[in-house]
Amino acid sequence: MTTDFNATKAMFDLPDGVIYLDGNSLGPMPKAAAARVAQTVTAEWGQMLIRGWNQAGWMEMPSRIGNRIAKLIGAEEGSVVMGDTLSIKVYQALASALEMNKPRKVILSDNGNFPSDLYIADGLARTLGEGYELRTVAPEDVEAAITDELAVLMLTEVDYRTGRKHDMARLIEKAHAHGVLVVWDLAHSAGAIPVELARDGADFAVGCSYKYLNSGPGGPAFIYVAPRHQERARPALSGWLGHEAPFAFDLDYRPGNGVERMRVGTPPILQLAALDAALDVWEGVTLQEIRAAALALQDRFIAGVEAACPDLELATPREHANRGSQVSFRHAEGYAVMQALIAEGVIGDFRAPDILRFGFTPLYIGPDEVDRAVQILARIIETKAWDRPEFKARSRVT
Amino acid sequence: MTTDFNATKAMFDLPDGVIYLDGNSLGPMPKAAAARVAQTVTAEWGQMLIRGWNQAGWMEMPSRIGNRIAKLIGAEEGSVVMGDTLSIKVYQALASALEMNKPRKVILSDNGNFPSDLYIADGLARTLGEGYELRTVAPEDVEAAITDELAVLMLTEVDYRTGRKHDMARLIEKAHAHGVLVVWDLAHSAGAIPVELARDGADFAVGCSYKYLNSGPGGPAFIYVAPRHQERARPALSGWLGHEAPFAFDLDYRPGNGVERMRVGTPPILQLAALDAALDVWEGVTLQEIRAAALALQDRFIAGVEAACPDLELATPREHANRGSQVSFRHAEGYAVMQALIAEGVIGDFRAPDILRFGFTPLYIGPDEVDRAVQILARIIETKAWDRPEFKARSRVT
Repeated sequence: MTTDFNATKAMFDLPDGVIYLDGNSLGPMPKAAAARVAQTVTAEWGQMLIRGWNQAGWMEMPSRIGNRIAKLIGAEEGSVVMGDTLSIKVYQALASALEMNKPRKVILSDNGNFPSDLYIADGLARTLGEGYELRTVAPEDVEAAITDELAVLMLTEVDYRTGRKHDMARLIEKAHAHGVLVVWDLAHSAGAIPVELARDGADFAVGCSYKYLNSGPGGPAFIYVAPRHQERARPALSGWLGHEAPFAFDLDYRPGNGVERMRVGTPPILQLAALDAALDVWEGVTLQEIRAAALALQDRFIAGVEAACPDLELATPREHANRGSQVSFRHAEGYAVMQALIAEGVIGDFRAPDILRFGFTPLYIGPDEVDRAVQILARIIETKAWDRPEFKARSRVT
Repeated sequence: MTTDFNATKAMFDLPDGVIYLDGNSLGPMPKAAAARVAQTVTAEWGQMLIRGWNQAGWMEMPSRIGNRIAKLIGAEEGSVVMGDTLSIKVYQALASALEMNKPRKVILSDNGNFPSDLYIADGLARTLGEGYELRTVAPEDVEAAITDELAVLMLTEVDYRTGRKHDMARLIEKAHAHGVLVVWDLAHSAGAIPVELARDGADFAVGCSYKYLNSGPGGPAFIYVAPRHQERARPALSGWLGHEAPFAFDLDYRPGNGVERMRVGTPPILQLAALDAALDVWEGVTLQEIRAAALALQDRFIAGVEAACPDLELATPREHANRGSQVSFRHAEGYAVMQALIAEGVIGDFRAPDILRFGFTPLYIGPDEVDRAVQILARIIETKAWDRPEFKARSRVT
């Protein structure tokens, strides 16, 4: 183990008294991000004005930062580009894969997938019209449901509620044996667990940067297109910055080189600046080390909670190979329990109907924080501290 | 005239020695934007963490700020929402309009439209398949080409190269008489000229915030859906934040209320914070005053340049009613001329093949800046100061 997690922890600015177990929803602020964003606003936008597109390298940020993320997900140089939101990138990946796999028309996913992915797939199938169909099965039935009938298998590697993890290599292998292309959503994988897109032969992947990559609220998404597909993949959202020569302003669209064609409109420079600075945290850190340390934290949390809180039911698989970087417990009053926890400085989140989610990353969480979180949760459960009207009143976002 | 443009000018932080005539490409930094973004990063993201979605009102920003922009484009409360990029919003508006106007399948636009709009329309037509078609005519032929065959008329009100302006009310009236829905791109209109979407009966409109609205590089786009269409318009990009109940995480998509359904993924909070602060500039300013003062600045610039630089040919219509807020001149060596101007602190931009663009807004430009810009341009033309290798070498973005 070469990574000094005390050093990575010092790179974040966490509020006093907070144990932050919600990096799977919104990563905390790296100190460097604040300084970089301020510089981008005042020195670049403020002083360079329009010249920032050249002088500050704004135009290249989506590709340059894409290459930084590629290293964290086992992707080839030149295969990842940043932009838009995860939903938009799902649409692009799915539309490209469907077009490449004509005349097949069925998308398979699972009912543990993040609903937005399913909504996007459904909207695309509806737009494409006759015969196009989104089919969902239970996560454990995905493998058996892969047949020659499918055009695309679209899966989120790690379930946003339970933390259950699919076996990416195995599912890709079976899908390819049946001529099916696979689109992976890495929202809960990137920066959390080792991902080997190139080694495993992935076709397309998408993900967001504001969870384990700590880019801040609304940070841009990424899209991966395997090099072997790049010249065939045609983005359904054919925007000018995905054009071969954006500043020629030709009337006809010609897709850009490689993954650049997946760019659409003007990139969000302030958000990209935050992300770029946030990625400095990863210099010298390997995902293998992160994974080993995160599993130890999770195991410690599970053992502590199960010993102290028999009311809580583990929703996350026990086997290391089958889970991502979060631990989820079920509780009938989960919403109120989470509000009580947050009031005491232990920040996780709640997902309907009864899931308490806790994300773990050794970048800024250590065994001490885990032990304190367990103690506070145990006290809340034991004293029924959650049973108060202010904790039961639902707000829109949790 | 009640607006004190000295007061608005003091709200911007422009570099010394710069005359900024490129607000039609990227507006300059309002001082308040820098402070607001810093606060959003350090006090909100840094200290509130995930709680910022509730405590700092992040989740409501796309609608709340949409309502602020609605006031600048003559739109009804609850008819505008922010997000994504202009290209994505064009796709959503166009897809909705096409679906509402089945079985018609032809989109009409003009060949002066911003190419990205045409690329997006072409990509959508291609995705929809058989029979769908994008047709383009010259801008002056649009009115005559409106027939019962068309599904949608998609136009940018102000031409990004020449500054020519369409007659919105007149074209909407003819389109509606033929059962055609109209999608307006207000990229070069919002914050520059009076727009009356509600009064003129517009169906859909889209625009960007980083030009005359000064939101910074990559600021989010907006979309307008007329209230009468909101419950029928179905967003092709059906993302979770456009769902009726995003945090119910239902597996089936149900479009949200009103224009909220046009939201897609997680909104870019840092960019929205910059925009929100930038909009404070508009408190107490009317578009009618902006328009009158901008036309005076443009006329002054045109008269000065035409008197001093016979080599330059005006590309912008002379009639006030037919132009937006920019003035364009043609010059065979336009690229080099613009580089020479920028080197002297007069920042406009160049659009292939031969267009020099200059944007005018009285928010931070006065008659003195116009006169100095004319003098510098005149000297560059007279002395052929542009005829140097470093001004002729093309960079990617100008």
